[in-house]
Amino acid sequence: MNMHMGGRQVNRLLLNCDMGESFGNWRMGLDAEVMPYIDCANIACGYHAGDPGSMRSTVALALEHGVSIGAHPAYPDLVGFGRRSMACSVEEIRDLLHYQIGALDGICKVLGAKVSYIKPHGALYNDMMADPLKLRAVLEAVAAYGSDLPLMLMATADDSAAQALGDEIGVPLWFEAFADRAYTASGHLVSRRLPGAVHHDPARVVEQAVRLARGQALVADDGSALLLNAATLCVHGDNDSSVAAVRQIRQALDALEAR
Amino acid sequence: MNMHMGGRQVNRLLLNCDMGESFGNWRMGLDAEVMPYIDCANIACGYHAGDPGSMRSTVALALEHGVSIGAHPAYPDLVGFGRRSMACSVEEIRDLLHYQIGALDGICKVLGAKVSYIKPHGALYNDMMADPLKLRAVLEAVAAYGSDLPLMLMATADDSAAQALGDEIGVPLWFEAFADRAYTASGHLVSRRLPGAVHHDPARVVEQAVRLARGQALVADDGSALLLNAATLCVHGDNDSSVAAVRQIRQALDALEAR
Amino acid sequence: MNMHMGGRQVNRLLLNCDMGESFGNWRMGLDAEVMPYIDCANIACGYHAGDPGSMRSTVALALEHGVSIGAHPAYPDLVGFGRRSMACSVEEIRDLLHYQIGALDGICKVLGAKVSYIKPHGALYNDMMADPLKLRAVLEAVAAYGSDLPLMLMATADDSAAQALGDEIGVPLWFEAFADRAYTASGHLVSRRLPGAVHHDPARVVEQAVRLARGQALVADDGSALLLNAATLCVHGDNDSSVAAVRQIRQALDALEAR
Amino acid sequence: MNMHMGGRQVNRLLLNCDMGESFGNWRMGLDAEVMPYIDCANIACGYHAGDPGSMRSTVALALEHGVSIGAHPAYPDLVGFGRRSMACSVEEIRDLLHYQIGALDGICKVLGAKVSYIKPHGALYNDMMADPLKLRAVLEAVAAYGSDLPLMLMATADDSAAQALGDEIGVPLWFEAFADRAYTASGHLVSRRLPGAVHHDPARVVEQAVRLARGQALVADDGSALLLNAATLCVHGDNDSSVAAVRQIRQALDALEAR
Repeated sequence: MNMHMGGRQVNRLLLNCDMGESFGNWRMGLDAEVMPYIDCANIACGYHAGDPGSMRSTVALALEHGVSIGAHPAYPDLVGFGRRSMACSVEEIRDLLHYQIGALDGICKVLGAKVSYIKPHGALYNDMMADPLKLRAVLEAVAAYGSDLPLMLMATADDSAAQALGDEIGVPLWFEAFADRAYTASGHLVSRRLPGAVHHDPARVVEQAVRLARGQALVADDGSALLLNAATLCVHGDNDSSVAAVRQIRQALDALEAR
Repeated sequence: MNMHMGGRQVNRLLLNCDMGESFGNWRMGLDAEVMPYIDCANIACGYHAGDPGSMRSTVALALEHGVSIGAHPAYPDLVGFGRRSMACSVEEIRDLLHYQIGALDGICKVLGAKVSYIKPHGALYNDMMADPLKLRAVLEAVAAYGSDLPLMLMATADDSAAQALGDEIGVPLWFEAFADRAYTASGHLVSRRLPGAVHHDPARVVEQAVRLARGQALVADDGSALLLNAATLCVHGDNDSSVAAVRQIRQALDALEAR
Repeated sequence: MNMHMGGRQVNRLLLNCDMGESFGNWRMGLDAEVMPYIDCANIACGYHAGDPGSMRSTVALALEHGVSIGAHPAYPDLVGFGRRSMACSVEEIRDLLHYQIGALDGICKVLGAKVSYIKPHGALYNDMMADPLKLRAVLEAVAAYGSDLPLMLMATADDSAAQALGDEIGVPLWFEAFADRAYTASGHLVSRRLPGAVHHDPARVVEQAVRLARGQALVADDGSALLLNAATLCVHGDNDSSVAAVRQIRQALDALEAR
Repeated sequence: MNMHMGGRQVNRLLLNCDMGESFGNWRMGLDAEVMPYIDCANIACGYHAGDPGSMRSTVALALEHGVSIGAHPAYPDLVGFGRRSMACSVEEIRDLLHYQIGALDGICKVLGAKVSYIKPHGALYNDMMADPLKLRAVLEAVAAYGSDLPLMLMATADDSAAQALGDEIGVPLWFEAFADRAYTASGHLVSRRLPGAVHHDPARVVEQAVRLARGQALVADDGSALLLNAATLCVHGDNDSSVAAVRQIRQALDALEAR
């Protein structure tokens, strides 16, 4: 998000985090611990995680901390946590998006909140990034839902095709980047199966976040410079150390903006 | 619904019908055949029947025929078709109602429609009628959803307790009756396990509908007079003969109103 | 199945049919009507269709007619009826096979029956035919289950790779063909999206069945001769006309064997 | 379990524990930590918890430690963790038991194990204890499955009715008690909503276990003596402190038997 502060443009990098991924009796994620440090909560809508009760309490927690609520819809695959690609048609993708966004919006409505953006989850997110027909299906579904909702998707070295599609369909795009992952030259994440894919050193994670916030290039895995145009940074609340990393990123970004 | 026509009050009895109860590849109900004759479509929301695709096509069909759309939420029990009572807490009932109403509302929003009333399904409906704490939970959930949605529930010989609760919580009540079922003196349905519980003669069904529309008493199974204050009549689109019955009821009611 | 009758070898072509694809209140398939004419019932195991009650009644019906019981396991996708490919790992495929086979075997055990063969359903079947790693995963899972169960899979122009894999892993293969579908020269089904993909003329369907039973070549869609080495024929009990077709095929095959 | 050691009968109290209650990506229970100390693993079968993969790894873990494998079937209610009573018919209870037992048995078969007993879970367990028709349904289902499987159920002050039913139907009964719970005079658990329902002092828990193993009476919440005829003790592996309690109970019981 761009802000003008004393004539100098500062890239206010929003922190987004997957939330509400408990299900029934099963707990997942330190939502209460990480919520104070983030800007945008991607809330599971019942298809890969989340149930009506957990959705309600996660929305309430987001409201308490003034955090924007995003729908985090997925393929219908609880046991696979929405991480397995499913051969859904574009009509099926459209309909499952509307169902899940509506369900979360219904729970938001009761609490005086509303869904402010959409970020598909897991395999649906990956499929949308890999297949322009699926990205189009998602964008059209988001546009059809109305409310001028933005779509959160992955920043890469060249976002022009996605941006053109978003412009055509009339959906604002929020490109997201990762502070704890290594990138290829094309701006894709290095596979977790390869060494060095995940940054474990907190200082390095914070440094990458600061570079992204400043609009500075990262160094890709082949040594080339990689410029990502990220409006938001995806952070994680899985465990104590990831929450600690989020807190450090938040402090670093706040310090940046205060200057 | 009351209408004043030439000084004479006519009880315009709305016809409501459970719709959208297909699921995935499984078909149920002659929705397209019965939609032209009804006023209110109770649309399944995915917990006992209905999936995002069937919800979308059922909403579109209702819109095409100018039929009001009601949410028909249920306990989460696909294999039991929502007909098995589940020991849900009042919080669980509240949350599952908001999830399902919201999901249907989301699909409606995309098509330029909206949910206009709520009618719980199956065991949730029965539990709500049998347990004042559950009726209160449902009413509070409907009120909290906002939009001044009415609740459809069963007319009995004495609706005063339900009406008092509806007034207290601020939810309009639409009491419904049945034209094809025998009643006990207290205004409850005679159990299907007893002989004579279901009227199979179309003429008798139409006659009962007309009596209800005129505000005339029915004859209960013990011979006593039973006055039901019904705003709406529950009809069925399961098969050809039930659709034929709906058509006949529609004609009889239209004739009544035209007089 | 080969039988020696008076010194002459007759190819006894077993008829297999998908059965037990109802779910809860939803009916699908004319199981009772088609069961008298088939040899092998592929029974849904709860992941794409079938519930414990329908599985029990389908097993009982098969027993009544002396029909072999096969497990018809699928990806976990009720709403998609198991027809959408899911990116399951080989471990996930193995485990979901064992779960579903075991569940059906448990219900069989109670009725004095047992699972006699395995035929994967829908997208799992297609994925197994398209991907040798998935075929291997299925074969290893079938072998690990023990009981010397055969695997039913699709006959093509060249079954040697599948046969080699079956031999290596020690699983008997039952290749199946279709009487109502047009074939390509490689022995794959012509896509339903193309004209002429499905034979609607009952005489033609019966003729194709007889050719397959006699071990005679079919004519592929490019005019070439196609020899399929089929042990079984897949028939359908969806509706009255498909049941009628099965009856005619049965009569034709019986006549063939009686000669 | 009775053992004769040097002419003196020792009540060998088996330790049973709910296991395999993870689901997909959600973890629950310290199965690996508690498995070394127990005799009987009640393994979830997919209806309230457990998926094919978790069932497989739990069975493998039980095998590794020589622990008996019990099926832990439940109502179909993942989001409610099988803790909400559902109005299932006796036929539905029978069928869902056979499905779940069979599924677990299938996975056991592959690993060279087998289901050795049945312990219903949660609301199904409670309903079975509260309603003789449901206990009969469960017992008949267990008998019909064959393999002479015992049923694990709750020991109370008077087990005669349950024992008579077990004898009639031919199912061995394994009565279980709790070391960490207070009892009423009738041998039922004091409701968790009441103070003192759960023993938090490890010494007290171990003492209650030892009393049960020795066949000594407990003191009920009204001060009366309560004799429970328990063959097995239900322990918990939820967290570090419950695992520590299990280890202490194991040591105390081992010491008892060694004397």
